[in-house]
Amino acid sequence: MLHGGSLPHLTPEETLAPILSALESVLGSARPVALHQPHFAGREWDYVKDCLDTGWVSSVGAYVTRLETALQDYTGVAHALAVVNGTAALHVCCLLAGVIAGDEVLLPTLTFVATANAVSYCGATPHLVDVSPVTLGVDAIRLAAYLEDIAELRGDTCYNRTTGHPLRALIVMHTFGHPAELDALAELCRRYRIVLIEDAAEALGSFYRDQHVGQWGLLSAVSFNGNKIVTTGGGGAVLTNDAALAQRARHLTTTAKQPHPWAFVHDQVAYNYRLPNLNAALGCAQLEQLPDFVSRKRALAQRYQHAFAAVAAGHIVNEPQDTRSNYWLNVLQLHPAYGHLRDALLETCQARGILVRPAWELMHRLPMYRDCPRMDMSTAEHLERHLVCLPSSVDTGSVDTGSEHA
Amino acid sequence: MLHGGSLPHLTPEETLAPILSALESVLGSARPVALHQPHFAGREWDYVKDCLDTGWVSSVGAYVTRLETALQDYTGVAHALAVVNGTAALHVCCLLAGVIAGDEVLLPTLTFVATANAVSYCGATPHLVDVSPVTLGVDAIRLAAYLEDIAELRGDTCYNRTTGHPLRALIVMHTFGHPAELDALAELCRRYRIVLIEDAAEALGSFYRDQHVGQWGLLSAVSFNGNKIVTTGGGGAVLTNDAALAQRARHLTTTAKQPHPWAFVHDQVAYNYRLPNLNAALGCAQLEQLPDFVSRKRALAQRYQHAFAAVAAGHIVNEPQDTRSNYWLNVLQLHPAYGHLRDALLETCQARGILVRPAWELMHRLPMYRDCPRMDMSTAEHLERHLVCLPSSVDTGSVDTGSEHA
Repeated sequence: MLHGGSLPHLTPEETLAPILSALESVLGSARPVALHQPHFAGREWDYVKDCLDTGWVSSVGAYVTRLETALQDYTGVAHALAVVNGTAALHVCCLLAGVIAGDEVLLPTLTFVATANAVSYCGATPHLVDVSPVTLGVDAIRLAAYLEDIAELRGDTCYNRTTGHPLRALIVMHTFGHPAELDALAELCRRYRIVLIEDAAEALGSFYRDQHVGQWGLLSAVSFNGNKIVTTGGGGAVLTNDAALAQRARHLTTTAKQPHPWAFVHDQVAYNYRLPNLNAALGCAQLEQLPDFVSRKRALAQRYQHAFAAVAAGHIVNEPQDTRSNYWLNVLQLHPAYGHLRDALLETCQARGILVRPAWELMHRLPMYRDCPRMDMSTAEHLERHLVCLPSSVDTGSVDTGSEHA
Repeated sequence: MLHGGSLPHLTPEETLAPILSALESVLGSARPVALHQPHFAGREWDYVKDCLDTGWVSSVGAYVTRLETALQDYTGVAHALAVVNGTAALHVCCLLAGVIAGDEVLLPTLTFVATANAVSYCGATPHLVDVSPVTLGVDAIRLAAYLEDIAELRGDTCYNRTTGHPLRALIVMHTFGHPAELDALAELCRRYRIVLIEDAAEALGSFYRDQHVGQWGLLSAVSFNGNKIVTTGGGGAVLTNDAALAQRARHLTTTAKQPHPWAFVHDQVAYNYRLPNLNAALGCAQLEQLPDFVSRKRALAQRYQHAFAAVAAGHIVNEPQDTRSNYWLNVLQLHPAYGHLRDALLETCQARGILVRPAWELMHRLPMYRDCPRMDMSTAEHLERHLVCLPSSVDTGSVDTGSEHA
């Protein structure tokens, strides 16, 4: 797919033409085409209407329980707890992992800002690590070498030798739906007594060695934001195989109110993080369609792969070995020689109503995380300059996919 | 209403009988009767279905803006910002009031735990104050005397003389919908350079001196939880007349993402607190009915007043002078001689399907706030033993109000 040697002398327009042509062959003619829009083709209205008809719209209701059961069944993780969004899920994961003020939490610099913010909410400091050029998630081999340098076990706690702070947890993020190297990362966490958390916000429907993601972390977070593979408007969930942690998650997300027919006794500082039943109803209908959505998104990924097979300027990032990705977002990785054209491509596509976007600004470049401890970030920095996320809705490329969604 | 002198010797059953009889005369025969359940009689279906039909269910959408405009129009407060729940609204109010770690924030001990938790989220300490026997909210005269004792101005900052910590803000809560003494409390805050925040979670539709609550605080919070006068499933809003604060609230609740067609640049640690469009759609339909809901709840309050006029064991708490309450929850205050029967009353009512409840456990009795600085709490302690909240839905006492709602 990538040709070696020197490039022919082309204008930017000429260079971008094959990319645009490949994109257009997948996307059809309807414009604008969203980066990712919801797809409601199941029982969404039935369930939502049922909430309105019965008056059960708030944080206690049958659809919340039903959504949690459906998540458990689909992912195979023993306990699921529905919360108000993916950020809240990550916050709860951090709290239950024991992250406290003064701790450091390892997480990839290539992620959405919520991963780092959840650590900040606990008063802890993100400790930023680089990613693998293959998985786009935390690089297990480089992290192992880095920990060798900076980490030191004292009793059952791992410390950053330089700062003297505990390295309490590692949050791995399954970037664009592609699972990170979970076996190797879990092994590394066991060795260093670091709690593993999976940020699976983008990865509902993604499998690693035939098991759904969320099985490796002590706790994991998923998201049902409007741009995710299934949506509840806003929503998310905490997943865990640990019954006691699941119980604590429930308590912590419901203002730590002790069960009682009328008394309002709360036994710790806690949160109002439970998902309303109205949103859960939408989620139940969406989850019923998840296997179909995953198939359709994998088929779209194949169409992208096929369309870009002959394009010299870049390639579509493929699912890593031993994984089965939900291909939440398809990503074009520009050939190194074409990196300087990334913004021209973004601008041209946007102008044509193809709502592509780059990867996130790297965490170590954001003002509030600029001074966080970190390793060398050369891979993430390279990737960030070369990645372009492509329209990846369930119905992208179907007839009549035009939409007003941005 | 209250008779003086010694009480006749009655059994608990005999003593409670007139209360139950008065309650039953208001509630009609359908059971169970909820403490507060939503009432959907407007365009809820239309608006929610419109979200599903257009695919706009998430945190960007026309209903969010429309809900905010409707709130501004109804309350007269210049800026409203819809968020994921009332707790999030309070948190944002505290953050924008400049509450930081090490600060103390004055708030009533008689409140729902979210008021205190919002302060904790900022790393600050609740400083608990007593309430007025008339408004059930912060007692302005006693607070003035207390501040005289403990507060000291240094430059433009008020300090707790004992702890040495800044007294950054006062959160007043409009208990059960009855406005606190806003003029006197605002004056006190000006004198001591303390930021005034209104916790109006329960008070949408309540007026103080002909202006809607939320006009006195620099920032105010309202709630659209399932048990509130209008509901979005879960939701809330920040109100402020300060355009710059409104702008900062918007930024802080949307992950502090800088406006850009594609780049993900965030410039501070921030939150994912925006209300989804799906919930906002429900809220728009509900707000259209708010004037009617307030009328019906005020009419219910009159029916309670009338029914309890001849009951010696207690009286219905009336709206304070100079206010027009939404009567979110009607509250029976037991005569001091009957306080020991509160739990028997709660149990008897619950057993009969009348889902009454007491006031909240006082903040200074909860384990996490037990050691917070505080004043003498004799009024709140007395009230807490004597208050019983009564069923107060919009349709309570109408024909066929029975419901499965708890």
